[in-house]
Amino acid sequence: MDRPLHALTAIEAAGQIRRGRLSSLDYAEALLAQAAAREPVLRAFAHLDAGAVRAQARRRDAQAPGGRGALHGVPLAVKDVIDTADMPTTYGSPIHAGHVPRRDAAVVALARAAGGIVFGKAVTAEFANRAPGPTTNPHDPERTPGGSSSGSAAAVGAGIVPLALGTQTTASVIRPASYCGVHGFKPSWGEISYAGIQLTAASLDTVGLYARSVPDLALLHAVLTATPFLAPMPGNVAAPRIGLCRTPFADQAEPCVHALLDEAARAAEKAGATVVECVLPRPFAGLADAHRWVSAWEGARSLAFEATRHRDRLSADILEGRIRDGEACSVELYRASARLGERCRLEMDALFAEYDALITPAAAGEAPKGLAFTGNAVFGGLWTLLHVPCLSLPGARGPAGMPIGLQLVGPRGGDRRLLELAAWLERAVFG
Amino acid sequence: MDRPLHALTAIEAAGQIRRGRLSSLDYAEALLAQAAAREPVLRAFAHLDAGAVRAQARRRDAQAPGGRGALHGVPLAVKDVIDTADMPTTYGSPIHAGHVPRRDAAVVALARAAGGIVFGKAVTAEFANRAPGPTTNPHDPERTPGGSSSGSAAAVGAGIVPLALGTQTTASVIRPASYCGVHGFKPSWGEISYAGIQLTAASLDTVGLYARSVPDLALLHAVLTATPFLAPMPGNVAAPRIGLCRTPFADQAEPCVHALLDEAARAAEKAGATVVECVLPRPFAGLADAHRWVSAWEGARSLAFEATRHRDRLSADILEGRIRDGEACSVELYRASARLGERCRLEMDALFAEYDALITPAAAGEAPKGLAFTGNAVFGGLWTLLHVPCLSLPGARGPAGMPIGLQLVGPRGGDRRLLELAAWLERAVFG
Repeated sequence: MDRPLHALTAIEAAGQIRRGRLSSLDYAEALLAQAAAREPVLRAFAHLDAGAVRAQARRRDAQAPGGRGALHGVPLAVKDVIDTADMPTTYGSPIHAGHVPRRDAAVVALARAAGGIVFGKAVTAEFANRAPGPTTNPHDPERTPGGSSSGSAAAVGAGIVPLALGTQTTASVIRPASYCGVHGFKPSWGEISYAGIQLTAASLDTVGLYARSVPDLALLHAVLTATPFLAPMPGNVAAPRIGLCRTPFADQAEPCVHALLDEAARAAEKAGATVVECVLPRPFAGLADAHRWVSAWEGARSLAFEATRHRDRLSADILEGRIRDGEACSVELYRASARLGERCRLEMDALFAEYDALITPAAAGEAPKGLAFTGNAVFGGLWTLLHVPCLSLPGARGPAGMPIGLQLVGPRGGDRRLLELAAWLERAVFG
Repeated sequence: MDRPLHALTAIEAAGQIRRGRLSSLDYAEALLAQAAAREPVLRAFAHLDAGAVRAQARRRDAQAPGGRGALHGVPLAVKDVIDTADMPTTYGSPIHAGHVPRRDAAVVALARAAGGIVFGKAVTAEFANRAPGPTTNPHDPERTPGGSSSGSAAAVGAGIVPLALGTQTTASVIRPASYCGVHGFKPSWGEISYAGIQLTAASLDTVGLYARSVPDLALLHAVLTATPFLAPMPGNVAAPRIGLCRTPFADQAEPCVHALLDEAARAAEKAGATVVECVLPRPFAGLADAHRWVSAWEGARSLAFEATRHRDRLSADILEGRIRDGEACSVELYRASARLGERCRLEMDALFAEYDALITPAAAGEAPKGLAFTGNAVFGGLWTLLHVPCLSLPGARGPAGMPIGLQLVGPRGGDRRLLELAAWLERAVFG
């Protein structure tokens, strides 16, 4: 292969390392060189220490071949709301500048136990909310990479790391994936532990994955759930039933997004799928508001320490947004909102008797210009509240030449099947 | 009143402090004296620094009357899985000896913002699981106080603090309340933030409250949910419909527990209630197993850092229990178990159309002898998985003279109403 090392997928790199064709250190050096080239403009990392990366890579190279894990020698970026015991974790807030946690988050521990290398801490919006960090879009430095997992998506998009961890409480994994042109995956709620991660809204918070291929997402997902890895086989998929779901918020999506959905539907049909317009039942129109109140009630309370002790160092964005909402929200409104989410979850289960997956907007359009606004989150919140697995496929471009993602949504708990359908659809649409 | 200061309820103490009849420091001194008398045998605290308690009390006394909160000057004990920025938090594990977190857990921040004083860190079983600390039962030092919120329940039971915080993933609040003869409350899942608390199983973990009266529980609940406090008025309750629910695990309850349920039913009827035997639908018998697999899947993964990096310093109890279970559990079994919980939650909602509350065993019997086993948890797990609010009322005694609690269970989200019913029932049964 003539591709540069930094363009390998995680599975390719792990395979070469396993077969002794590549050392973890040489691979890390290639990624560090790419970081040196891109970081001055990209600013994806809140913390990146080349010496620490090399030291980890050398330790991986020194390990005996027996007992090596599936990610042996492969670096990943970790969103800076996820604790790391050997690197600062600031949650994107000056309140916690320089803080080094006592322990790794569960997902970091699992990635390390599988042989992974923590490449650095990726920039997050303040407390995984909206006030952005300095990261720019890897495809246009004058545009936002999206948020809140800004640095994670940008680092994968810029070819600095093959894998990254993010988190999603609204649209914080899928929207940056769409804007940065990378593969993003928000698994079903509940299966991946949130231990050691900044809590926002515990009934919504989900660990997210970034990669540059569907099989890489599946590999990382297996590591983080501590389950066996089965490579997604598009050949296992025959004549899938796909719902084209523009959502109740369709009018907020730009024409290029609707055009991508139409094009994907045609390509899927040509490859053997059945595609039917899926109109969500009427109560689903309330999910955007329901998500707002659930995330605000829980989110404001999760920030009680900062809101009571360091209020002057919180951004106006969070104070006048989620915290004000959460302090204003009555317990009755919170409960009614959470119940609507639960009711729609069950309706969604029933709906998936008719569909193997839905295709739906990953974001409202291309990444907006400017860095102050991380973009419209409406195409994330409803699915996060529904606890369903969501995956964004890159490959399409909008009118300005910027990436736009195609979001796939599957039934709760159907993560492995969704990865397989994504592999199939990717070949059908972008193949 | 002739009662000693350490016997005041939180509402009484807060009232006297508010009216200037008692200083926070004098109150704290009375509690410290009680601690000095009881702690040598009780061992409820993992950390208790009299100087730090006095310093907090002096600061409360120095605060201007304007802007004082509902807990102004009132100490509470905090289970040692709940982070405190000024005191060590060890999660009941030697792995984390001496660890002082960067910030207070959200519940601690809310209690402090309301004027509360952190009296000390209460002993927890290792990672809020089963391996016990040194705490003894306040009513018999040769018996367990229950677990995992051992120190919190024991400290309230011994009159050292009027309030304490615990956590429940199975039965860790209600069972110690029953064994130690105190009021315990596990609210509905989801409303109180778990930020800054050791995660076990995020879909079950719930902050718990200890106090020595129902109104005190209601006050603390209002503080922790950041909602207005409305004192529970038993006079608002007329002719409640109560279900007597022995659960599918009735044969594990000792005769004294069944006798207490019968007696409570008779007393409630005499006071105007309708009491009907409530037999849970057949699928509910699967909830004990379902709870086991949900808590094990999530719990083992939440401990990934300790299990991969410090495995030799975990107890055999947790390694051969929750961690082995969680590592052995397939994702399919986990999902099926979580789904059974969800299905039963909805059936439970429907069931509560017929009942205002259920009465049910708080524990299988009196606190067992010995400190190695924290007791049978079967009367907790099902309700925790059902996300319903649960409250244990003290007042009854078993054949050995040890306390046994009466558990009340209400519908999800009906926390405030359950507190009112508890006040009514307490008067009817124990009044």
